[in-house]
Amino acid sequence: MQTELSRQLGAEHALFGFTPFPAVAAALSRAGGFGVLGAVRYGRADELRRDLDWMEAHTEGRPYGLDVVMPAKKVEGVTEEDVEAMIPEGHRQYVSELLAAYDVPELPEGERGGWRITGWMESVARGQLDVAFDYPVKLLANALGSPPADVIERAHRQGIPVAALAGSPRHAQRHKEAGIDIVVAQGYEAGGHTGEIATMVLTPEVVRAVDPLPVLAAGGIGSGEQLAAALALGAQGAWLGSVWLTTTEADLGSRALTRKLLAAGAGDTVRSRALTGKPARQLRTAWTDAWEPGEGPGPLPMPLQGLLVAEANSRIQRHEVEPLLGTPVGQIVGSMNSERSVQAVVDDLTRGFDRALSRLNRIAGTG
Amino acid sequence: MQTELSRQLGAEHALFGFTPFPAVAAALSRAGGFGVLGAVRYGRADELRRDLDWMEAHTEGRPYGLDVVMPAKKVEGVTEEDVEAMIPEGHRQYVSELLAAYDVPELPEGERGGWRITGWMESVARGQLDVAFDYPVKLLANALGSPPADVIERAHRQGIPVAALAGSPRHAQRHKEAGIDIVVAQGYEAGGHTGEIATMVLTPEVVRAVDPLPVLAAGGIGSGEQLAAALALGAQGAWLGSVWLTTTEADLGSRALTRKLLAAGAGDTVRSRALTGKPARQLRTAWTDAWEPGEGPGPLPMPLQGLLVAEANSRIQRHEVEPLLGTPVGQIVGSMNSERSVQAVVDDLTRGFDRALSRLNRIAGTG
Repeated sequence: MQTELSRQLGAEHALFGFTPFPAVAAALSRAGGFGVLGAVRYGRADELRRDLDWMEAHTEGRPYGLDVVMPAKKVEGVTEEDVEAMIPEGHRQYVSELLAAYDVPELPEGERGGWRITGWMESVARGQLDVAFDYPVKLLANALGSPPADVIERAHRQGIPVAALAGSPRHAQRHKEAGIDIVVAQGYEAGGHTGEIATMVLTPEVVRAVDPLPVLAAGGIGSGEQLAAALALGAQGAWLGSVWLTTTEADLGSRALTRKLLAAGAGDTVRSRALTGKPARQLRTAWTDAWEPGEGPGPLPMPLQGLLVAEANSRIQRHEVEPLLGTPVGQIVGSMNSERSVQAVVDDLTRGFDRALSRLNRIAGTG
Repeated sequence: MQTELSRQLGAEHALFGFTPFPAVAAALSRAGGFGVLGAVRYGRADELRRDLDWMEAHTEGRPYGLDVVMPAKKVEGVTEEDVEAMIPEGHRQYVSELLAAYDVPELPEGERGGWRITGWMESVARGQLDVAFDYPVKLLANALGSPPADVIERAHRQGIPVAALAGSPRHAQRHKEAGIDIVVAQGYEAGGHTGEIATMVLTPEVVRAVDPLPVLAAGGIGSGEQLAAALALGAQGAWLGSVWLTTTEADLGSRALTRKLLAAGAGDTVRSRALTGKPARQLRTAWTDAWEPGEGPGPLPMPLQGLLVAEANSRIQRHEVEPLLGTPVGQIVGSMNSERSVQAVVDDLTRGFDRALSRLNRIAGTG
């Protein structure tokens, strides 16, 4: 299953996987796909270095990439403390009340909230990049807007193509103008930050908007049939995130969360600003309900909301408080019903692709 | 482009078109697709009879179908006047104020609002069916839930398969239990009434939920690439509605509206309860904005909202009051950029399908 882009990047299949877990990214690259490691959770450069060393040791020379989060709008010299100070007291109070209402215990003594907002800040993302450029990463992706021009230039000097996510044709067009090499068209049904336009409509619109740049389709892809659909829409590959969450290599840190994912249906996600301040699709929980319009004070803008809820989310996850326990995930969660290895998922995807293609050839009367 | 279902129904292409316009439905059937005429706007049985006579004279013996709207929940003996009486005065006031704010003139003397809510009422739908069963319609579709059991039985006695729209796998499962023959999986991106699940995810879920019943994919399909994607997802055909609105055979009754459709982008639709009380995707206008959460008294439940706004919509359309002028349409409106004949659309769809399939075969290394 090869496109011009997958050949250029040296992958056997036009199958890109975004994941926060090095074990998943490495397993995908070994299986012939292209693993992209999410860097957002690495607050410290030495932790990223340790995991990239691990990737080098476990990818058998296969290509992999790195995904950073650099917000398009830069705020000079702002520290985490400055941002903390912008959060209204009423919002802190609301979070405390929610946690109390569900009897969410404190974190154990000395344990710090695992996921910090710092990964969203440019200073931190730049530290991550300084590390990344020491490794032979084959793709640099940015989840929020185009990265700054100097970052694109630095990547290009090292021969690394740069990808950026887009939720609308106009957004994609801006990426092209900024010098991006690959656009990931992220549809409404995707996990994480999404716009309103569904993959079926967004993919061909973005392909037209950025022609001749290659486009990866993201959102709603978890089976070989969906992979075939994405490629039929003109994408040069598929970008999958959710499907890896229930692989045996993933480490969600909570069995209760894995069970929730396995049990959830396609209608059990919601596009909510509860997590970061921007609309992001995730499991619908009592927590997301509490941030819906008409409930409480409403979410703050990015990056304030992420900072406001970071510790609360760590406490909810650490203590597996089921009604509140969630994670970003797309609508394909409805078909994530068993734990499988990354290799098994890739085998299913490629077999399903072949099956869908045979069926299409029969429908066309040519198969 | 044939599937088991299209063969069974006698159509050359697995391409189903829903439209309120007999000229579009007939042209699609003549072009090798399967035209389905929407009956909701026929308040009077003799008008439907006249247009079915016309269909008979203009389909050259090709198959066509009829789409009625029978709400699943039946309210015995309720008249239009009874429903009118349930509308709160504050809502009528809000509509009057909106119309005044945009200087919307009254309808000309003696002219009645064209589209009436009556088409949504079971008594009216049953009158439509009495007419329809006199004609050799090859498919009976119902846009809201499963039709009553006696209607399904009557259709089956006449050898007519019954289709019903579903926005979730559970909804589709209920259709199967009710004896429906074909399920139309209507994705989030579709025009008209939709659920939250996008076509990419909904189609395979519904295929699994109702196996072995055939499924048509609806929502986000306006090009051959999207048609190929829909069929890759396991559908036995595609159900297209929006794409016909800008065909030369369509009669929207307003050039301004046609111009708005041709100019709109994929992001210019909204899923709103403004039109019928249930979420339906349509052009975003100052009118839909006025029914968004937080604005005014909010929409009433179906069928009250439809009755409340029927005359207002007729006035807006009759006088082409541009800021308020809208219509149900899906996200593919962004690619509806020229007026073409139905035959030209079908040619584009079949050629685009072939092109997408060739591309997939090259990607698979078999083409």
